[in-house]
Order: sequence, then structure tokens, then C-alpha cells
Amino acid sequence: MPQLPRSSTPALVGRKRCLPFVVALMTFLLLSGSAGGQEVRAPLPDSAWIVSTYRDGADRITAEAQKDSSAYDRLAYLCDTFGPRLSGSENLAKALQWVLKEMKSDGLDNVHGEEAMVPHWVRGHESLELLEPHHSHLAMLGLGGSVATPPDAITAEVIVVKDFDELKRRTADVRGKIVLFDEVFKNYGQAVRYRSRGAVEAARYGAVASFIRSVTPMSLYTPHTGVMYYNDSIPKVPHAAITAEDAAMMARMQARGQKIVVRLKMEAQTLPDVPSLNVMGEVIGRENPDEVIIVGGHSDSWDVGEGAHDDGGGCVEAWEAVHLLKKLGLKPRRTVRAVLFVNEENGTRGGLAYLKAHESELGKHVLAIESDAGVYRPTGFGFSGSDSARKIVSAIASLLEPIGAGQVRRGGGGTDIGPIMEKGVPGMSPSSEGATYFWYHHSPADMLDKIDPRDLNLSVAALAIMIYVVADLPQPLPR
Amino acid sequence: MPQLPRSSTPALVGRKRCLPFVVALMTFLLLSGSAGGQEVRAPLPDSAWIVSTYRDGADRITAEAQKDSSAYDRLAYLCDTFGPRLSGSENLAKALQWVLKEMKSDGLDNVHGEEAMVPHWVRGHESLELLEPHHSHLAMLGLGGSVATPPDAITAEVIVVKDFDELKRRTADVRGKIVLFDEVFKNYGQAVRYRSRGAVEAARYGAVASFIRSVTPMSLYTPHTGVMYYNDSIPKVPHAAITAEDAAMMARMQARGQKIVVRLKMEAQTLPDVPSLNVMGEVIGRENPDEVIIVGGHSDSWDVGEGAHDDGGGCVEAWEAVHLLKKLGLKPRRTVRAVLFVNEENGTRGGLAYLKAHESELGKHVLAIESDAGVYRPTGFGFSGSDSARKIVSAIASLLEPIGAGQVRRGGGGTDIGPIMEKGVPGMSPSSEGATYFWYHHSPADMLDKIDPRDLNLSVAALAIMIYVVADLPQPLPR
Repeated sequence: MPQLPRSSTPALVGRKRCLPFVVALMTFLLLSGSAGGQEVRAPLPDSAWIVSTYRDGADRITAEAQKDSSAYDRLAYLCDTFGPRLSGSENLAKALQWVLKEMKSDGLDNVHGEEAMVPHWVRGHESLELLEPHHSHLAMLGLGGSVATPPDAITAEVIVVKDFDELKRRTADVRGKIVLFDEVFKNYGQAVRYRSRGAVEAARYGAVASFIRSVTPMSLYTPHTGVMYYNDSIPKVPHAAITAEDAAMMARMQARGQKIVVRLKMEAQTLPDVPSLNVMGEVIGRENPDEVIIVGGHSDSWDVGEGAHDDGGGCVEAWEAVHLLKKLGLKPRRTVRAVLFVNEENGTRGGLAYLKAHESELGKHVLAIESDAGVYRPTGFGFSGSDSARKIVSAIASLLEPIGAGQVRRGGGGTDIGPIMEKGVPGMSPSSEGATYFWYHHSPADMLDKIDPRDLNLSVAALAIMIYVVADLPQPLPR
Repeated sequence: MPQLPRSSTPALVGRKRCLPFVVALMTFLLLSGSAGGQEVRAPLPDSAWIVSTYRDGADRITAEAQKDSSAYDRLAYLCDTFGPRLSGSENLAKALQWVLKEMKSDGLDNVHGEEAMVPHWVRGHESLELLEPHHSHLAMLGLGGSVATPPDAITAEVIVVKDFDELKRRTADVRGKIVLFDEVFKNYGQAVRYRSRGAVEAARYGAVASFIRSVTPMSLYTPHTGVMYYNDSIPKVPHAAITAEDAAMMARMQARGQKIVVRLKMEAQTLPDVPSLNVMGEVIGRENPDEVIIVGGHSDSWDVGEGAHDDGGGCVEAWEAVHLLKKLGLKPRRTVRAVLFVNEENGTRGGLAYLKAHESELGKHVLAIESDAGVYRPTGFGFSGSDSARKIVSAIASLLEPIGAGQVRRGGGGTDIGPIMEKGVPGMSPSSEGATYFWYHHSPADMLDKIDPRDLNLSVAALAIMIYVVADLPQPLPR
């Protein structure tokens, strides 16, 4: 075990004040040696003990995280050098090789990639022209997974419906037309239904293509892409996002009885799957290296912008949180592992590959955290796990109150850790003041300038403190 | 003189309370008959008289303007049916024919167009690809008046400078490259210099093209176009706007020593001038029809978006202000004339044609108002004219205090009324809470949904009250 700075040995610090607890702990350690994965019966550390034990370490982490702009510089380099990083793209492949190299130069342990086959959808050239009532070129983004139009494009009338209910009332008007779902953003879950299922529902009634109003509450003529799905029993028609501005315009045109005619051209293709990687690096636990806390983001992005918020920022937060422990010489009891999952956006192949590769170890996956909601001033965490575990992570989060990140709400997780959460691993996600996240999400505006370096540093600090303490507590989080 | 509602005959209403003033007025009228254009020597109406005389009329105008959404509906129809309306375009020509027809159906007097030859720049296809350090497609808008690239595009390295001073310090690095002027928006006047003169300054040192950071304080990956100029003694190179996001990205790339290579393709052309029209309609003055108050906007827009704020809104405000007097049967002493000037954006040919056509009448142009700063909640006016006239328009503006539009600041006017203001016509422009104007200005985001119908109605009311009272006062505004 390497020489550790004083504040990184909290069990020693805590010993004098917590003798009864240490006795309980010894009991626990004896029990847990033979009862891995069973319910923990030893008393859990109370909040006061956690706070007093880890206050120094937390303060050191917070100070170190805010010392310079190295996390932001790393994110900037990732975004600018490799650009958008859709699964299957050369940009992503190059970015992952760079991450591997950098993680090694950071001195992280067990730096490696684990293969995942990912989809390879390519946008190709695409365009949308309004032909009637006036002529102009409209912005659009084909939705991920969409088929192409025929090579000579689709020229058709547009019918605007507010939602699936209106579509059902107007099925007689749909055949041969392009259906625009003009659902105004209220929340992501509600609006995204038209992105996911719009093509199927429109084609069901004979539409030749479908449009959605981009899924965003704010637009400066910015289209937003994202994944969409087909149903094998329904003809596959091209599906694209137009801007909120143009959706509103078409709704007005229809309301005043104007015929809307457009020409849509898309050359999108789904090519054969491509091998890619989940990339990871660790600080190996000093006492229980096979017990693991994972913290991750996803390395892929959509093929527009720089994927700065989604999810370059989450990747760098997770990576830098682990790196920060390394830099401070904080080697907690358990292993902390940064995982950059691949293919969150259009397949979850990375999350599934992680499950497959680590399924036998999941009993010792103490916690999985995924950061995938943009880089904003952190406010705390969402947590999915047992009540007793929640009490512990709430106590840890209270160490983050000085930076305003002390709240723990119910419900946490992420797409990539979903498969292992289903197997019982407690899941967590950082919470933040992300009011503008959907302004940028999946759009060309998701660029580095939308991220405040101070928010990134605080987010790294919050994650680092959480993983450090969870990894260092005398016993694993109870399930 | 037609039968008028009570509140539209303020001279009668005021007579009882203002006998001394009426005596002075008679003197003035006698004098002014032989002294047109000379300094007015009769005492001017005081503020209290103006307010008490025109309060009823102002209130009727305000109520009528807010009665329904007819102004907004008209603006929406203009925007949606004809789309962007660059000088020389078919869209604009169709829009102007519609305006003429509508003004006639409104019952306005002397509805007609006055010819102006306008430039005919067409954008054509254009594209920008980043080739190094990563590959992606970048948004861009060629600037109005720019030449094309050679047909096989320009592939060149980008050099980023903050401003003209930095360009001068780095002239040795410029030859054969594309200069990006990455001036962050502080105010329009400062940032727009790079749009206007960037190509000349870059080409002076051997650049093969030039870019500007789009002139805006807020971007969701939105490029902004606008007019640019060449200098006949310097080679003409293509000049384009990129987004604020990409400008910041390139600045970061350069700062970390990364080579930036792009491929720029532009097919822009300047075709022969095209005949177009200043379109106007009036309410003829009941006593002094040759004395004219003009209120206008410009009918042309850039070739992206719908020109909703710039300046469809200004046109509809001016037009509806005159229309509102017509609807209320308010026929003031002097003529009020709505003028939709053509070609504000890239030539001011409309403003110059108006000067040429009306130069002999300018002595009786009492006031010219131009609305060309977007449609926002009105706060008052800017005014350029004599101090004695300012006192009068300030008194009139005080009638707008109930709707928050009572301020008169120094300095007003507009591009299209500039030529006649130079000949001595007092100039005015509405002021408003236009904090977001440059978010949309000259960009595809300048769409109708960015306008609040309530703001439009209040803006119409403010203009209508101002033109009505100026047109109805016993004597013209003093110069």
C-alpha cells in the first residue's frame, strides 16, 4: 500500500472518535469475507461520522478541482480536435485512441478498451426546400436511423398535426403526404415521442415521410437530431427534424388554408456495424480492489456540433474525477473506474457490452454513476438504490453543501448503466442547474462555448468526492 | 371635410380652453402661407394643451390597436406567404404587389409604387467544411455583395485575428490564407466593422477569403448575414459569416497550435439591377394635404428567415398606424403617408429614390419616422430635430405614458429616411425594449414566432398617436 497523505486515511482519523463503530466494522469485515453480495448486517456509518471523517479529503478535492482549467482544456481538446463523434465514425475512433493514451499518461490503472460492435448510420447529404407558398431553403436534420429518400427526392404536401391524437382524427388526409408533428416542447419525455415513433405512426396511414418540430424549448433556427425507430411491419419512411420556427410557420400556413409543398432529399444510410470500444481507467482500491465504483459518461455524440454537453462533458467529469484522486494520491479502499461508454445515442451497445463483460462481477459493483445531463453548476445527485444506501450517499452529499451540491433526490441512473442497474447495481446521476440543456442537446449548438469552466470543475469535484467516499467507506453501500 | 367623430376634431375641443393660442395660431397660419420652410414665429402649443386636446384621440387609438390581432395576422401573412424578401428577388416583387392591393382594400389614399432600381445579389449554393483538425460541416452565410469562390472552391488555412489591429501585427502570416475576424459582440457598431470592411482589410495583405464571427451577442449555431463592401483598388475576395460557436472554436484551435484548414465554396453573383418599388399609401390631410408626415419601414429583408423583425414588423407597424387612423375615421389636418422603402439592406436605393422623387416637397415634410429596430414593447422615440420640435414631440409622447412609451431621447432616424433628413426633414424612430434584436437580426431565426402580437399592437398604437398628433397640430413641427 503506498504512502498516503494524512487526510486520505480517514479510517485512522476516525478511529479515535468512533471506537464502537470500528468494532462493528471489524465484525462486518469478518462477515463480509464470506458473504459477498449478501445483505450487510453490520451497522452502517452514521452521517456525522462520514462528515467528520471525510471533510478534509472533500475539501482537498474541491480545492484541487478548482485550481486550474485542466478539465476544461481536456474537454476543449476532445471537442475541437475530434469534433462530433457519432458511433461508427472515424472521429470517434480517433477520439477513443486519444483517451486511451491520455488515461495512461495520467497514470491511471488498467487503462484499456473493451470491444462493442456499434451501429454505423451516416447522414450523407440532405436538404429541404419549401416550394409553396413561397420558395426558401429550410434547415433540417435527418433523425438517427432514418432511411433516405429516393434519389430524386420526395416532393409532397405537408400536413401539420399537433399530436398522435390529431393524426388519428385526420388519417384520411395523410396518404401521400408528409406529416409534421408540431408538438411544442413541454418536457423531453413528452416531446421525444414524436422523434422516436413519428415515422411509424405517419407511415401507418400512408405518409411518405414525417417531420418533427425539433425537441427543444428554445430555438434560434436550430434543428435537433436524435434517434428514431421503425417497426418492421410498417413501411420505413424518411423522418427528419425541422426547426421550431419552421414548424410554427407551417402550422400557421395550414391554419390559414395555404397549401404547403416541400422537396425533401436525404441520403442517409445504415452501414454494417463497426467495432468500437468502451474505454476505462481506474485507481485500484487499496484494500478491496475487486469492489468497484464506476463513474462514466458516453464517448459518442450526435454528428453535429461537438458533443460538448452531450456527452463530452460527462466523460471528462467522470475521467477527471478519477484522475483527481490519482493526482491527490487518494487511493480509496475500493477501486474507482472511469468508464467512457460507447453508443449511448443510438443503440446502447456500450452499456450492453459492459454488462456482458462484467456480469459475473456485478455483485461487487458497489455503485454506478453516469453523468449525461450536461455540464452545469452541480446541485447534488439522483440515486436509485436502497433506503439505507440513500442515507449514506445523502451523508456524503452533505460534504458538497459548501459548493451547493448537497441534495440527493430519488431516482438516478443513465442509459449506459441501465443494463447493470437492472442486475441490481445501485445507480446514480449528478443533478445540476441544467435549465438550458435542451437548448443545445443533439444540435449543432452543442459546442464548447456553452460550458462554463467553473461549472465543470465543480462537477468534477462533486463526482470525485462521491466516488472517493463511497469507495473508501468501511463497508460497501448496502443494496 | 368629412364628418368626423368628436374626438378627432381636437381644434374644436381645444378652442374654448385656449383662446389665446387660437389667436396666435391664426397669426401663424397667415404667416406660414407666405413663409413655407421659414422659421415658425408663432407661439407653439404647450404640453398641457397637447395632452388635454389629444388625450381622447390617443385613448381611442390605443384601444383600437389592441382590439384584435389584425396587425399580427397581416405580418404573419406577409412573412409566411412571401418568405425572405431580398432586393431583386421574386419573393419581394410578389410581396410588394400584395401590399399595393391590400393598401387599396384598406381604403388608403394615393396608394402607389414609385420605381427604384435595386441591386440583385444572389447567394447561390454555398458550403464550408472543416478539414483539419477534424472533419465537419460548418454553418455559414455569405455576406451580401460577396463574390463567389472559384468553382472548385477555396481550400486554405485559417488565421484567426481578434481585430484589425491584430491583423496589422500579423500581416506576414496572412498571404494565401483565410482571415477570420473573431471580434466578440459588444455592440453592433463595433462588431459590424468586420462585416463591412473585413474582406478589404484581409485582401490588402494577400488573404484569399475572409470570415467574420456572426454579429450577434447570442447564438444557437446561427449565422448572420448582412451587407459588405469592396474597395476597387483591392482584390475582391469571398467574405462570409460563420457562427459564434465556430469562431470561438477556431480561436481555441489556433491558441493551442492546431492548424485549421477549411474548404469554402460560394456561388454568389451580383446580377444586373432590377426595377423595384417604394410602396406607399396615405390618409390625405383635411386642411393641409401638401404637408406630410411619413412613417415607414423597409420592405426588403435578407434572404434568410422571414424578415419578421427586420423589417416586416416595421413595415406593418407603419402601415397599420396609418390604417388605424383610417379605420377610426381620424383625418388629421396634414397628410400621413406610410412608406415601405425598398432596398434598405444593401443599397438604400429606396431612400435615395424617395429623395429624388420628392425633393421639391421636402420643405413640407413635417416629420419622417422609420421603424427598423424590431418589434418589441415600445418605450418611446428617438428624435432628431430642433429643440422646440423636441418639446412638442415629447408632449405628444407623454400621451403614450399609459402604455409605457413616453420617453423621447435625442437622436432618431433610419437608413431610408437618412437622405431626406440630410435635407432638413426632422427624423424619428421608435424606441423599444429590444434586448434580443441582434439575436435574430439578418439570420434565419428572424421568424414570426419571435414577435409578440401584444408588442406589435402597442407599437402600432405608439406610431399612430405620434403621427396623428403631429399631423393634426395647429402648426407644423418647427425645424
